Amino acid sequence: MSRNERISMSVIRRLPRYYRFLYDLKENGVTRISSRELAQRMHLTASQIRQDFNCFGEFGQQGYGYMVEQLYHEIERILGLDQLTPAILIGAGNMGRTIATQMHFERRGMKLIGIFDINPQIVGTSIGELTVLSEDEMVEFCQTNQPEMAILCIPKTSAPGVVQQLTELGIKGFWNFSHYYINDAHPDAIVENVHLSDSLMTLSYRLQQKD
Amino acid sequence: MSRNERISMSVIRRLPRYYRFLYDLKENGVTRISSRELAQRMHLTASQIRQDFNCFGEFGQQGYGYMVEQLYHEIERILGLDQLTPAILIGAGNMGRTIATQMHFERRGMKLIGIFDINPQIVGTSIGELTVLSEDEMVEFCQTNQPEMAILCIPKTSAPGVVQQLTELGIKGFWNFSHYYINDAHPDAIVENVHLSDSLMTLSYRLQQKD
Repeated sequence: MSRNERISMSVIRRLPRYYRFLYDLKENGVTRISSRELAQRMHLTASQIRQDFNCFGEFGQQGYGYMVEQLYHEIERILGLDQLTPAILIGAGNMGRTIATQMHFERRGMKLIGIFDINPQIVGTSIGELTVLSEDEMVEFCQTNQPEMAILCIPKTSAPGVVQQLTELGIKGFWNFSHYYINDAHPDAIVENVHLSDSLMTLSYRLQQKD
Repeated sequence: MSRNERISMSVIRRLPRYYRFLYDLKENGVTRISSRELAQRMHLTASQIRQDFNCFGEFGQQGYGYMVEQLYHEIERILGLDQLTPAILIGAGNMGRTIATQMHFERRGMKLIGIFDINPQIVGTSIGELTVLSEDEMVEFCQTNQPEMAILCIPKTSAPGVVQQLTELGIKGFWNFSHYYINDAHPDAIVENVHLSDSLMTLSYRLQQKD
Protein backbone atom coordinates (compact mmCIF):
# COMPACT_ATOMS: atom_id res chain seq x y z
CA MET A 1 0.00 0.00 0.00
CA SER A 2 1.37 3.39 -0.96
CA ARG A 3 1.64 6.12 1.62
CA ASN A 4 -1.22 8.10 0.07
CA GLU A 5 -3.88 5.45 0.37
CA ARG A 6 -3.90 5.78 4.12
CA ILE A 7 -4.48 9.52 4.24
CA SER A 8 -7.72 10.61 5.88
CA MET A 9 -10.02 13.25 4.42
CA SER A 10 -9.43 15.48 7.45
CA VAL A 11 -5.70 15.64 6.64
CA ILE A 12 -6.46 16.25 2.97
CA ARG A 13 -8.83 19.08 3.84
CA ARG A 14 -6.07 20.78 5.83
CA LEU A 15 -3.66 20.79 2.86
CA PRO A 16 -5.19 23.82 1.10
CA ARG A 17 -5.01 25.70 4.42
CA TYR A 18 -1.32 24.88 4.82
CA TYR A 19 -0.85 25.97 1.25
CA ARG A 20 -2.51 29.36 1.90
CA PHE A 21 -0.57 29.96 5.11
CA LEU A 22 2.73 29.03 3.50
CA TYR A 23 1.97 31.33 0.58
CA ASP A 24 1.46 34.22 3.00
CA LEU A 25 4.66 33.40 4.87
CA LYS A 26 6.56 33.23 1.60
CA GLU A 27 5.10 36.57 0.46
CA ASN A 28 6.08 38.10 3.81
CA GLY A 29 9.68 37.02 3.34
CA VAL A 30 9.68 34.23 5.95
CA THR A 31 12.10 31.55 4.78
CA ARG A 32 12.01 29.06 7.67
CA ILE A 33 9.41 28.20 10.30
CA SER A 34 9.22 25.71 13.18
CA SER A 35 6.24 23.40 13.48
CA ARG A 36 5.52 25.11 16.82
CA GLU A 37 5.29 28.55 15.25
CA LEU A 38 3.28 27.31 12.25
CA ALA A 39 0.97 25.57 14.72
CA GLN A 40 0.41 28.77 16.68
CA ARG A 41 -0.44 30.73 13.56
CA MET A 42 -2.81 28.07 12.27
CA HIS A 43 -4.41 27.21 15.61
CA LEU A 44 -3.32 23.59 15.36
CA THR A 45 -0.86 21.64 17.51
CA ALA A 46 2.76 21.16 16.45
CA SER A 47 2.36 17.40 16.72
CA GLN A 48 -0.66 17.47 14.41
CA ILE A 49 1.32 19.43 11.83
CA ARG A 50 4.21 16.96 12.02
CA GLN A 51 1.80 14.02 11.72
CA ASP A 52 0.01 15.62 8.74
CA PHE A 53 3.24 16.23 6.85
CA ASN A 54 4.54 12.77 7.70
CA CYS A 55 1.67 11.33 5.66
CA PHE A 56 3.34 12.66 2.53
CA GLY A 57 7.04 12.19 3.18
CA GLU A 58 9.89 13.74 5.08
CA PHE A 59 9.68 17.50 5.34
CA GLY A 60 11.62 19.63 7.78
CA GLN A 61 14.29 18.59 10.19
CA GLN A 62 14.24 18.08 13.95
CA GLY A 63 15.22 21.36 15.64
CA TYR A 64 15.54 23.20 12.36
CA GLY A 65 11.97 23.61 11.11
CA TYR A 66 10.53 23.78 7.64
CA MET A 67 11.89 25.68 4.65
CA VAL A 68 8.83 27.72 3.69
CA GLU A 69 9.26 27.93 -0.07
CA GLN A 70 10.23 24.26 -0.40
CA LEU A 71 7.28 23.09 1.70
CA TYR A 72 4.95 25.39 -0.25
CA HIS A 73 6.00 23.79 -3.53
CA GLU A 74 5.78 20.29 -2.05
CA ILE A 75 2.18 20.90 -1.00
CA GLU A 76 1.45 22.42 -4.40
CA ARG A 77 2.73 19.21 -5.98
CA ILE A 78 0.83 16.99 -3.52
CA LEU A 79 -2.40 18.89 -4.24
CA GLY A 80 -1.78 18.37 -7.95
CA LEU A 81 -1.80 22.10 -8.66
CA ASP A 82 1.12 21.74 -11.06
CA GLN A 83 -1.16 19.83 -13.45
CA LEU A 84 -4.31 21.38 -14.91
CA THR A 85 -7.42 19.18 -14.97
CA PRO A 86 -9.80 20.25 -17.78
CA ALA A 87 -13.13 21.37 -16.31
CA ILE A 88 -16.50 22.55 -17.58
CA LEU A 89 -19.13 24.70 -15.88
CA ILE A 90 -22.83 23.89 -16.17
CA GLY A 91 -25.15 26.81 -15.43
CA ALA A 92 -24.05 30.36 -16.24
CA GLY A 93 -26.48 32.26 -14.02
CA ASN A 94 -25.26 34.66 -11.33
CA MET A 95 -23.36 32.09 -9.30
CA GLY A 96 -21.93 30.34 -12.37
CA ARG A 97 -20.62 33.60 -13.84
CA THR A 98 -19.09 34.62 -10.54
CA ILE A 99 -17.38 31.26 -10.14
CA ALA A 100 -16.13 31.36 -13.74
CA THR A 101 -14.60 34.82 -13.36
CA GLN A 102 -13.39 34.83 -9.74
CA MET A 103 -11.88 31.45 -9.03
CA HIS A 104 -8.41 31.64 -10.63
CA PHE A 105 -8.81 28.01 -11.75
CA GLU A 106 -5.29 27.69 -13.11
CA ARG A 107 -3.89 28.40 -9.64
CA ARG A 108 -6.12 25.63 -8.20
CA GLY A 109 -5.10 22.83 -10.56
CA MET A 110 -7.96 23.25 -13.02
CA LYS A 111 -8.49 24.75 -16.46
CA LEU A 112 -11.99 25.93 -17.34
CA ILE A 113 -12.49 24.93 -20.98
CA GLY A 114 -16.26 25.16 -21.52
CA ILE A 115 -19.40 26.78 -20.08
CA PHE A 116 -22.93 25.56 -20.79
CA ASP A 117 -26.45 26.83 -20.14
CA ILE A 118 -29.98 26.10 -21.32
CA ASN A 119 -31.20 29.70 -21.30
CA PRO A 120 -31.15 31.06 -24.90
CA GLN A 121 -30.55 34.57 -23.53
CA ILE A 122 -27.32 33.38 -21.85
CA VAL A 123 -26.07 31.03 -24.61
CA GLY A 124 -23.69 32.95 -26.88
CA THR A 125 -22.66 35.52 -24.26
CA SER A 126 -19.01 35.79 -23.21
CA ILE A 127 -17.56 34.98 -19.82
CA GLY A 128 -13.87 35.82 -19.73
CA GLU A 129 -12.40 34.23 -22.85
CA LEU A 130 -15.16 31.64 -23.21
CA THR A 131 -18.50 31.81 -25.02
CA VAL A 132 -21.41 30.11 -23.26
CA LEU A 133 -22.53 27.07 -25.26
CA SER A 134 -25.95 25.45 -25.35
CA GLU A 135 -26.43 22.25 -23.36
CA ASP A 136 -27.21 20.57 -26.70
CA GLU A 137 -23.55 21.04 -27.59
CA MET A 138 -22.32 19.39 -24.39
CA VAL A 139 -22.10 15.80 -25.66
CA GLU A 140 -20.00 16.63 -28.68
CA PHE A 141 -17.85 19.06 -26.70
CA CYS A 142 -17.08 16.44 -24.05
CA GLN A 143 -16.34 13.73 -26.62
CA THR A 144 -13.88 16.08 -28.34
CA ASN A 145 -12.28 17.80 -25.35
CA GLN A 146 -12.49 15.14 -22.63
CA PRO A 147 -13.06 17.29 -19.53
CA GLU A 148 -12.63 15.40 -16.25
CA MET A 149 -14.41 17.73 -13.85
CA ALA A 150 -17.74 19.59 -13.92
CA ILE A 151 -18.88 22.52 -11.82
CA LEU A 152 -22.61 22.40 -11.20
CA CYS A 153 -24.29 25.78 -10.74
CA ILE A 154 -27.74 24.48 -11.59
CA PRO A 155 -30.93 23.88 -9.57
CA LYS A 156 -31.27 20.64 -7.63
CA THR A 157 -34.11 19.51 -9.90
CA SER A 158 -31.94 19.65 -13.06
CA ALA A 159 -28.93 18.03 -11.44
CA PRO A 160 -29.79 14.27 -11.60
CA GLY A 161 -30.18 14.26 -15.41
CA VAL A 162 -27.10 16.40 -16.01
CA VAL A 163 -24.92 14.32 -13.67
CA GLN A 164 -26.08 11.09 -15.33
CA GLN A 165 -25.20 12.46 -18.76
CA LEU A 166 -21.83 13.85 -17.63
CA THR A 167 -20.89 10.59 -15.91
CA GLU A 168 -21.57 8.71 -19.16
CA LEU A 169 -19.37 11.27 -20.92
CA GLY A 170 -16.44 10.42 -18.64
CA ILE A 171 -16.63 13.19 -16.02
CA LYS A 172 -15.11 11.84 -12.79
CA GLY A 173 -15.32 14.81 -10.42
CA PHE A 174 -17.99 17.33 -9.52
CA TRP A 175 -17.75 20.67 -7.75
CA ASN A 176 -21.34 20.75 -6.69
CA PHE A 177 -23.16 23.98 -5.79
CA SER A 178 -26.55 22.30 -6.12
CA HIS A 179 -28.14 20.47 -3.20
CA TYR A 180 -28.42 17.23 -5.17
CA TYR A 181 -26.67 14.36 -3.38
CA ILE A 182 -24.57 12.97 -6.26
CA ASN A 183 -23.04 9.93 -4.55
CA ASP A 184 -26.41 8.21 -3.97
CA ALA A 185 -26.75 7.38 -7.67
CA HIS A 186 -23.04 7.69 -8.51
CA PRO A 187 -21.02 6.20 -5.64
CA ASP A 188 -17.72 6.40 -7.55
CA ALA A 189 -17.97 10.09 -8.41
CA ILE A 190 -15.53 12.38 -6.61
CA VAL A 191 -17.63 15.17 -5.20
CA GLU A 192 -16.94 18.37 -3.32
CA ASN A 193 -20.16 19.99 -2.20
CA VAL A 194 -20.48 23.71 -1.55
CA HIS A 195 -23.50 24.31 0.65
CA LEU A 196 -23.44 28.06 1.22
CA SER A 197 -26.83 28.05 2.88
CA ASP A 198 -25.65 25.49 5.47
CA SER A 199 -22.81 27.81 6.42
CA LEU A 200 -25.23 30.75 6.73
CA MET A 201 -27.65 28.73 8.89
CA THR A 202 -24.79 27.60 11.14
CA LEU A 203 -23.91 31.26 11.64
CA SER A 204 -27.57 32.03 12.48
CA TYR A 205 -27.51 29.35 15.13
CA ARG A 206 -24.23 30.47 16.66
CA LEU A 207 -25.30 34.13 16.76
CA GLN A 208 -28.55 33.20 18.46
CA GLN A 209 -26.70 31.12 21.07
CA LYS A 210 -24.42 34.05 21.86
CA ASP A 211 -27.34 36.36 22.70
CA MET B 1 -25.45 24.06 32.57
CA SER B 2 -28.14 24.22 29.89
CA ARG B 3 -28.38 21.48 27.32
CA ASN B 4 -27.10 23.72 24.53
CA GLU B 5 -23.77 24.59 26.10
CA ARG B 6 -22.54 21.06 25.64
CA ILE B 7 -23.27 20.79 21.93
CA SER B 8 -20.25 20.24 19.71
CA MET B 9 -19.64 22.12 16.47
CA SER B 10 -19.86 18.87 14.50
CA VAL B 11 -23.44 18.34 15.71
CA ILE B 12 -24.28 21.98 14.98
CA ARG B 13 -22.88 21.67 11.47
CA ARG B 14 -25.15 18.69 10.80
CA LEU B 15 -28.30 20.66 11.73
CA PRO B 16 -28.62 22.51 8.40
CA ARG B 17 -28.24 19.18 6.62
CA TYR B 18 -31.03 17.61 8.68
CA TYR B 19 -33.08 20.69 7.93
CA ARG B 20 -32.57 20.28 4.16
CA PHE B 21 -33.33 16.57 4.19
CA LEU B 22 -36.48 17.06 6.29
CA TYR B 23 -37.62 19.81 3.94
CA ASP B 24 -37.32 17.44 0.98
CA LEU B 25 -39.15 14.67 2.84
CA LYS B 26 -41.91 17.11 3.76
CA GLU B 27 -42.18 18.33 0.17
CA ASN B 28 -42.38 14.71 -1.01
CA GLY B 29 -45.31 14.04 1.30
CA VAL B 30 -43.43 11.89 3.83
CA THR B 31 -45.04 12.44 7.23
CA ARG B 32 -43.08 10.02 9.44
CA ILE B 33 -39.59 8.53 9.24
CA SER B 34 -37.57 6.15 11.42
CA SER B 35 -34.07 7.11 12.53
CA ARG B 36 -32.85 4.06 10.57
CA GLU B 37 -34.38 5.26 7.30
CA LEU B 38 -33.26 8.88 7.84
CA ALA B 39 -29.78 7.52 8.57
CA GLN B 40 -29.70 5.55 5.33
CA ARG B 41 -30.74 8.56 3.28
CA MET B 42 -28.22 10.84 4.96
CA HIS B 43 -25.33 8.36 5.10
CA LEU B 44 -25.13 8.56 8.88
CA THR B 45 -25.86 5.92 11.51
CA ALA B 46 -29.22 5.73 13.28
CA SER B 47 -27.50 6.00 16.64
CA GLN B 48 -25.70 9.17 15.55
CA ILE B 49 -29.00 10.73 14.51
CA ARG B 50 -30.61 9.80 17.83
CA GLN B 51 -27.62 11.19 19.73
CA ASP B 52 -27.66 14.43 17.69
CA PHE B 53 -31.34 15.06 18.32
CA ASN B 54 -31.01 14.16 22.00
CA CYS B 55 -28.73 17.19 22.38
CA PHE B 56 -31.75 19.40 21.82
CA GLY B 57 -34.58 17.60 23.56
CA GLU B 58 -36.92 14.68 23.08
CA PHE B 59 -37.94 14.15 19.49
CA GLY B 60 -39.52 11.00 18.12
CA GLN B 61 -40.63 7.93 19.98
CA GLN B 62 -39.06 4.50 20.30
CA GLY B 63 -40.45 2.25 17.56
CA TYR B 64 -42.50 5.03 16.03
CA GLY B 65 -39.98 7.35 14.43
CA TYR B 66 -40.02 11.08 13.85
CA MET B 67 -42.92 13.23 12.64
CA VAL B 68 -41.26 14.95 9.67
CA GLU B 69 -43.04 18.31 9.74
CA GLN B 70 -42.75 18.67 13.50
CA LEU B 71 -39.05 17.81 13.50
CA TYR B 72 -38.47 20.20 10.57
CA HIS B 73 -40.00 23.07 12.52
CA GLU B 74 -38.10 22.10 15.69
CA ILE B 75 -34.79 22.29 13.81
CA GLU B 76 -35.87 25.55 12.21
CA ARG B 77 -36.45 26.94 15.71
CA ILE B 78 -33.17 25.50 17.06
CA LEU B 79 -31.27 27.07 14.15
CA GLY B 80 -32.95 30.38 14.96
CA LEU B 81 -34.45 30.67 11.47
CA ASP B 82 -37.72 31.96 12.92
CA GLN B 83 -35.94 35.18 13.95
CA LEU B 84 -34.23 37.45 11.43
CA THR B 85 -30.79 38.78 12.38
CA PRO B 86 -30.08 42.10 10.62
CA ALA B 87 -27.05 41.75 8.34
CA ILE B 88 -24.94 43.97 6.09
CA LEU B 89 -22.79 43.07 3.10
CA ILE B 90 -19.39 44.66 2.56
CA GLY B 91 -18.10 44.46 -1.00
CA ALA B 92 -20.55 44.50 -3.91
CA GLY B 93 -18.29 43.05 -6.61
CA ASN B 94 -19.22 39.89 -8.51
CA MET B 95 -19.28 37.62 -5.48
CA GLY B 96 -21.03 40.17 -3.26
CA ARG B 97 -23.78 40.78 -5.81
CA THR B 98 -24.30 37.06 -6.31
CA ILE B 99 -24.51 36.43 -2.58
CA ALA B 100 -26.92 39.36 -2.13
CA THR B 101 -29.28 38.15 -4.83
CA GLN B 102 -29.07 34.36 -4.52
CA MET B 103 -28.99 33.49 -0.84
CA HIS B 104 -32.65 33.81 0.27
CA PHE B 105 -31.45 35.35 3.54
CA GLU B 106 -34.89 35.46 5.13
CA ARG B 107 -35.13 31.68 4.88
CA ARG B 108 -31.74 31.36 6.63
CA GLY B 109 -32.51 33.52 9.67
CA MET B 110 -31.01 36.74 8.32
CA LYS B 111 -32.28 39.98 6.84
CA LEU B 112 -29.95 41.87 4.52
CA ILE B 113 -30.47 45.55 5.37
CA GLY B 114 -27.44 47.31 3.85
CA ILE B 115 -24.77 46.88 1.17
CA PHE B 116 -21.51 48.86 1.09
CA ASP B 117 -18.65 49.31 -1.36
CA ILE B 118 -15.76 51.70 -1.86
CA ASN B 119 -15.89 51.74 -5.67
CA PRO B 120 -17.67 54.95 -6.82
CA GLN B 121 -18.90 53.12 -9.93
CA ILE B 122 -20.71 50.58 -7.74
CA VAL B 123 -21.99 52.94 -5.02
CA GLY B 124 -25.51 54.08 -5.92
CA THR B 125 -26.37 51.01 -8.03
CA SER B 126 -29.27 48.76 -7.02
CA ILE B 127 -29.05 45.18 -5.86
CA GLY B 128 -32.51 43.75 -5.33
CA GLU B 129 -34.36 46.32 -3.25
CA LEU B 130 -31.20 47.86 -1.77
CA THR B 131 -28.99 50.68 -3.06
CA VAL B 132 -25.25 50.19 -2.55
CA LEU B 133 -23.96 52.74 -0.05
CA SER B 134 -20.47 54.16 0.26
CA GLU B 135 -18.25 52.79 3.02
CA ASP B 136 -18.18 56.34 4.41
CA GLU B 137 -21.85 55.88 5.28
CA MET B 138 -21.23 52.64 7.18
CA VAL B 139 -20.67 54.10 10.65
CA GLU B 140 -23.84 56.14 10.70
CA PHE B 141 -25.84 53.30 9.13
CA CYS B 142 -24.68 50.83 11.78
CA GLN B 143 -25.32 53.24 14.63
CA THR B 144 -28.86 53.78 13.36
CA ASN B 145 -29.77 50.27 12.23
CA GLN B 146 -27.72 48.07 14.59
CA PRO B 147 -26.85 45.17 12.28
CA GLU B 148 -25.42 42.13 14.10
CA MET B 149 -23.82 40.26 11.22
CA ALA B 150 -21.57 41.27 8.32
CA ILE B 151 -20.83 39.39 5.11
CA LEU B 152 -17.32 40.10 3.90
CA CYS B 153 -16.85 39.89 0.13
CA ILE B 154 -13.68 42.01 0.14
CA PRO B 155 -10.00 41.26 -0.47
CA LYS B 156 -7.92 39.90 2.38
CA THR B 157 -5.87 43.11 2.49
CA SER B 158 -8.91 45.30 3.22
CA ALA B 159 -10.42 42.92 5.74
CA PRO B 160 -8.45 43.75 8.96
CA GLY B 161 -9.46 47.44 8.94
CA VAL B 162 -13.08 46.74 8.05
CA VAL B 163 -13.44 44.02 10.68
CA GLN B 164 -11.92 46.28 13.36
CA GLN B 165 -14.36 49.04 12.48
CA LEU B 166 -17.38 46.71 12.34
CA THR B 167 -16.48 45.13 15.67
CA GLU B 168 -16.39 48.57 17.28
CA LEU B 169 -19.82 49.21 15.72
CA GLY B 170 -21.26 46.16 17.49
CA ILE B 171 -21.11 43.51 14.76
CA LYS B 172 -20.84 40.09 16.46
CA GLY B 173 -20.83 37.67 13.54
CA PHE B 174 -19.02 37.46 10.21
CA TRP B 175 -19.74 35.38 7.13
CA ASN B 176 -16.27 35.62 5.76
CA PHE B 177 -15.47 35.07 2.07
CA SER B 178 -12.06 36.71 2.46
CA HIS B 179 -9.02 34.70 3.52
CA TYR B 180 -8.37 36.98 6.50
CA TYR B 181 -8.29 34.98 9.76
CA ILE B 182 -10.66 37.11 11.88
CA ASN B 183 -10.35 35.29 15.22
CA ASP B 184 -6.63 36.08 15.61
CA ALA B 185 -7.35 39.75 16.37
CA HIS B 186 -11.00 39.22 17.42
CA PRO B 187 -11.22 36.01 19.46
CA ASP B 188 -14.85 36.64 20.47
CA ALA B 189 -16.20 37.15 16.96
CA ILE B 190 -18.47 34.40 15.65
CA VAL B 191 -17.07 33.52 12.24
CA GLU B 192 -18.10 31.19 9.44
CA ASN B 193 -15.44 31.10 6.75
CA VAL B 194 -16.20 30.22 3.15
CA HIS B 195 -13.00 29.13 1.45
CA LEU B 196 -14.13 28.19 -2.04
CA SER B 197 -10.58 27.78 -3.28
CA ASP B 198 -9.83 25.22 -0.53
CA SER B 199 -12.75 23.14 -1.72
CA LEU B 200 -11.53 23.37 -5.32
CA MET B 201 -7.98 22.38 -4.36
CA THR B 202 -9.28 19.42 -2.36
CA LEU B 203 -11.11 18.28 -5.48
CA SER B 204 -7.90 18.67 -7.52
CA TYR B 205 -6.09 16.43 -5.06
CA ARG B 206 -8.78 13.77 -4.99
CA LEU B 207 -9.06 13.69 -8.80
CA GLN B 208 -5.31 13.31 -9.13
CA GLN B 209 -5.29 10.45 -6.61
CA LYS B 210 -7.98 8.62 -8.56
CA ASP B 211 -5.95 8.61 -11.77
